[in-house]
Amino acid sequence: MRINIDRLMSDIERYGTYGLDPKGGLTRPSFSEPDYQVRELFMKELKEMGLAVYVDPIANIWGRWSGEDTSKKSIVIGSHLDTVPNGGMFDGALGVLVAKEIMKTIIEHEVPLKHTLEIVSFTAEEPNDFNLSTMGSRTFTGKLTKEDLMTVTDSKGTKLKDAVEKAGGSLERLPIEKDDIAAFVELHIEQGKRLESAELPVGVVDRIVGIYRDKVTIIGESNHSGTTMMNDRFDALTAASEMILAVETILRNHGTDAVATIGKLDVFPNAANIIPGKVDMVLEIRSGTAAERIELKKMIYQKWDEVIDRRKVSINVVNILDQQECQFDEQIVQWIQESAKDLQIPYTTFSSMAGHDATHMADVAKTAMIFVKSINGKSHCPEEFSKKEDIEQAANVMLNAVLNIDQKLS
Amino acid sequence: MRINIDRLMSDIERYGTYGLDPKGGLTRPSFSEPDYQVRELFMKELKEMGLAVYVDPIANIWGRWSGEDTSKKSIVIGSHLDTVPNGGMFDGALGVLVAKEIMKTIIEHEVPLKHTLEIVSFTAEEPNDFNLSTMGSRTFTGKLTKEDLMTVTDSKGTKLKDAVEKAGGSLERLPIEKDDIAAFVELHIEQGKRLESAELPVGVVDRIVGIYRDKVTIIGESNHSGTTMMNDRFDALTAASEMILAVETILRNHGTDAVATIGKLDVFPNAANIIPGKVDMVLEIRSGTAAERIELKKMIYQKWDEVIDRRKVSINVVNILDQQECQFDEQIVQWIQESAKDLQIPYTTFSSMAGHDATHMADVAKTAMIFVKSINGKSHCPEEFSKKEDIEQAANVMLNAVLNIDQKLS
Repeated sequence: MRINIDRLMSDIERYGTYGLDPKGGLTRPSFSEPDYQVRELFMKELKEMGLAVYVDPIANIWGRWSGEDTSKKSIVIGSHLDTVPNGGMFDGALGVLVAKEIMKTIIEHEVPLKHTLEIVSFTAEEPNDFNLSTMGSRTFTGKLTKEDLMTVTDSKGTKLKDAVEKAGGSLERLPIEKDDIAAFVELHIEQGKRLESAELPVGVVDRIVGIYRDKVTIIGESNHSGTTMMNDRFDALTAASEMILAVETILRNHGTDAVATIGKLDVFPNAANIIPGKVDMVLEIRSGTAAERIELKKMIYQKWDEVIDRRKVSINVVNILDQQECQFDEQIVQWIQESAKDLQIPYTTFSSMAGHDATHMADVAKTAMIFVKSINGKSHCPEEFSKKEDIEQAANVMLNAVLNIDQKLS
Repeated sequence: MRINIDRLMSDIERYGTYGLDPKGGLTRPSFSEPDYQVRELFMKELKEMGLAVYVDPIANIWGRWSGEDTSKKSIVIGSHLDTVPNGGMFDGALGVLVAKEIMKTIIEHEVPLKHTLEIVSFTAEEPNDFNLSTMGSRTFTGKLTKEDLMTVTDSKGTKLKDAVEKAGGSLERLPIEKDDIAAFVELHIEQGKRLESAELPVGVVDRIVGIYRDKVTIIGESNHSGTTMMNDRFDALTAASEMILAVETILRNHGTDAVATIGKLDVFPNAANIIPGKVDMVLEIRSGTAAERIELKKMIYQKWDEVIDRRKVSINVVNILDQQECQFDEQIVQWIQESAKDLQIPYTTFSSMAGHDATHMADVAKTAMIFVKSINGKSHCPEEFSKKEDIEQAANVMLNAVLNIDQKLS
């Protein structure tokens, strides 16, 4: 039994017209008109498939196909249909449409499932104008409460409450009392280049990396850019430059998938004729294990201390984030790996470097993810792309995994 | 004949109480209450010395001691009495008070001068709330016109026109028709560490450096800080860091007084979780000769090209300033040097790395400057300081120079 790749590709194309602008980008944030339209389409098609369709209080859309053993909890598959502004047609939608295709294939083949199989499309996974990303999965798992959400408005003053109601939800009905999920599997594009570099179509994701962020202030001495000779300077920006390059060198030489970035940096007083006296910057380290993050942090600060001493500047460090990795369920990961092996589809097992709805679902269900190869690692842009043949292989791994999980999960 | 150093130091202390705040900083921008008060004091004291006091249309204060040969143009000495907010008591005021002390000494000793000797205190030399620095000397030399000034207001809406009138000037009377100046000598604190490093009390300033500024945009590729592996990045900020360090290294190894600075830098999109896709920065080069600036620029861009090629980023460069050096008068410089030699006071001859009123006066009169050693190179701050013994030596060089110029200038 295989998914119907042509039907799936046609779904991807079709859904990809909702919010498409003439220049090729897809703009379909949650609660935009194209989002409301694609929700209608999606619910109509789930109903046509014979599913029991349900919109929960935060407007996540669920489609349910009952299993034979009603004492068993559900297996849930899905992702999200919203996009960033000027994004692509794969991030999120691919996971939802693969889930739909898997459901369709199982129904067509009249495969008996022990567990109920549910599809979900989560609300507002992407950053959005309400400033709450992974809104649907966080609310579903109780991390965002009625109190958190009731007063939220977007930049135009639209109440989240009203936007959710227009999509069929109701913040008044929070919290969500749904404790019948046994497992959750999300398929998503990789958004990176690791699969492409390894020439592999599929990644089995066994964890989401931890993220560590320090706000670092470098204090030198502001001075006149003319009268202060080169050797008399305590330039916070040249110090920062050396520190930034040290981070790059350490990570490049480290030989793992860990990454570190200075993405935010502000110079003070930031005038062409004044030697920078202060630089504020944020160091971010992402890696799959806390031990590695600690090791990298140590290597970075060791090198930084040498720079600071030599340049006679000082630094002040405040930790602003220390988010631990999210370990996925070992059994689910193993059952997905087995499914790929069965189909002789090459794969690797690695961590997701970005957060997903699955991060939150892992709190309430046995969870794992499947990544599809991205081309050029691009996402959140019109150039976001995954090839038909890679999508087909990943979708079949997932179909096989669902059947495997249904068999083996108690 | 020598200046009276104790009288001069007492003047510096006394004038330094106008605008003094309890924490030690001096805040006396032009047209502030302390500025109006110090102007009154200054004019009163010039009158008591028997000078003819005159406030010109931009409110520069002039005090005139007529010479014996009325066919000869004036020798002018002076600087400015305004300060930056939270500045020191030496920047500007020292040059005005040394001029007053020299005038007093000459009058007391009944030294006959061939040329008329004038003291000037220029209006608003420092950056100020009207956004026009060296306002007095630029208006005096016709570089700022009535049209430029009439509609100017400060951040509180005060009209410059009214502020100037309150100080005894009148924008209506512009332009200033005063073409009787033969020579201008300004004494100023160095604001750098070159004299201190060389253990010299006095600098003879033969030019003001030229300033070259390029706005440089570095274009890399914005991307997700998690999913983009270290080797797949085109990080505009790590590229900028390498470019900034290259500037520092080139200038440090160059072995002249030339300096180059990146004082202004902005990162885009400037978020902790996004690899910087763009950096805007301003490269500033200051040196005494155009040839050196061109040479330095060539060395910097040669190195930068290598960085850009290797990192596969691109840059866009717009020249925003190419201000040539201001060459002072060779004769005046020589006569000041002779005066120092006569007094056996050690000195060096070098360029001023910062702009001064003398930059503009050089357009209308034979001009040069004398620098007094600064301690720790500090200026524009409460720690700004020059030692009594250095001030005494510099003031005596200047007194001697005035007498020398009076004798030798046709």
